[in-house]
Amino acid sequence: MSSKLLRITLNSNQPDILVQFYAILGFVFVKRNVDKGSSTWVGTLPNMEIEIFGIRETFTHTSPSVQLSFEVQDVSQVVQKVKTLGTQIMMEPLETKSGLMSYLVDPDGRSIELLQPSQNLL
Amino acid sequence: MSSKLLRITLNSNQPDILVQFYAILGFVFVKRNVDKGSSTWVGTLPNMEIEIFGIRETFTHTSPSVQLSFEVQDVSQVVQKVKTLGTQIMMEPLETKSGLMSYLVDPDGRSIELLQPSQNLL
Repeated sequence: MSSKLLRITLNSNQPDILVQFYAILGFVFVKRNVDKGSSTWVGTLPNMEIEIFGIRETFTHTSPSVQLSFEVQDVSQVVQKVKTLGTQIMMEPLETKSGLMSYLVDPDGRSIELLQPSQNLL
Repeated sequence: MSSKLLRITLNSNQPDILVQFYAILGFVFVKRNVDKGSSTWVGTLPNMEIEIFGIRETFTHTSPSVQLSFEVQDVSQVVQKVKTLGTQIMMEPLETKSGLMSYLVDPDGRSIELLQPSQNLL
């Protein structure tokens, strides 16, 4: 099954500092306001996107330090397969405006976002 | 300054399970034996590479959960700039067979590898 990495999200309780750091590495950031009074900064490089997400707390199981987002061909099939590894599913596949989405936790606690676009572009 | 993400390394004390998980997401893995009796698995997707590195301990400051590797045009300039943020430099720029390399810790403790290839391909 072909997949591609769409985005890396770094959750941080010091997002301003983190944005400065990753800007030095070459990312160009745009700030967006999101729900709950929080902010997110989306940075791009020629071949990828990074998102820095402001959180209030330190890292916990529900706010892991990193989230990797993947575009996959069949979200439901991936979710079914990872369940056999005992993977925790934070959100079962759900139809959204962007497509079919699901959130998982990898075996070490990193957050994984899966997206199957409405028009499958793979 | 243009940069590109080369690789994401996931350090794990349960690498076998992690490899199974990311293989389901579409990565094709090749196992390599590395120093100190440890193993590493390198997985590829069409647009990126992921590495799963077996460690014995749980995550610490010296073995963070994630390492992001970037190819940059000028490692020394990046290192000089991030020092103004108080960034911890784990390894100052060093000439290696692959090119000029350096290891940093991002403001939240994630590991960052910088590489300036001998022949600059950017």
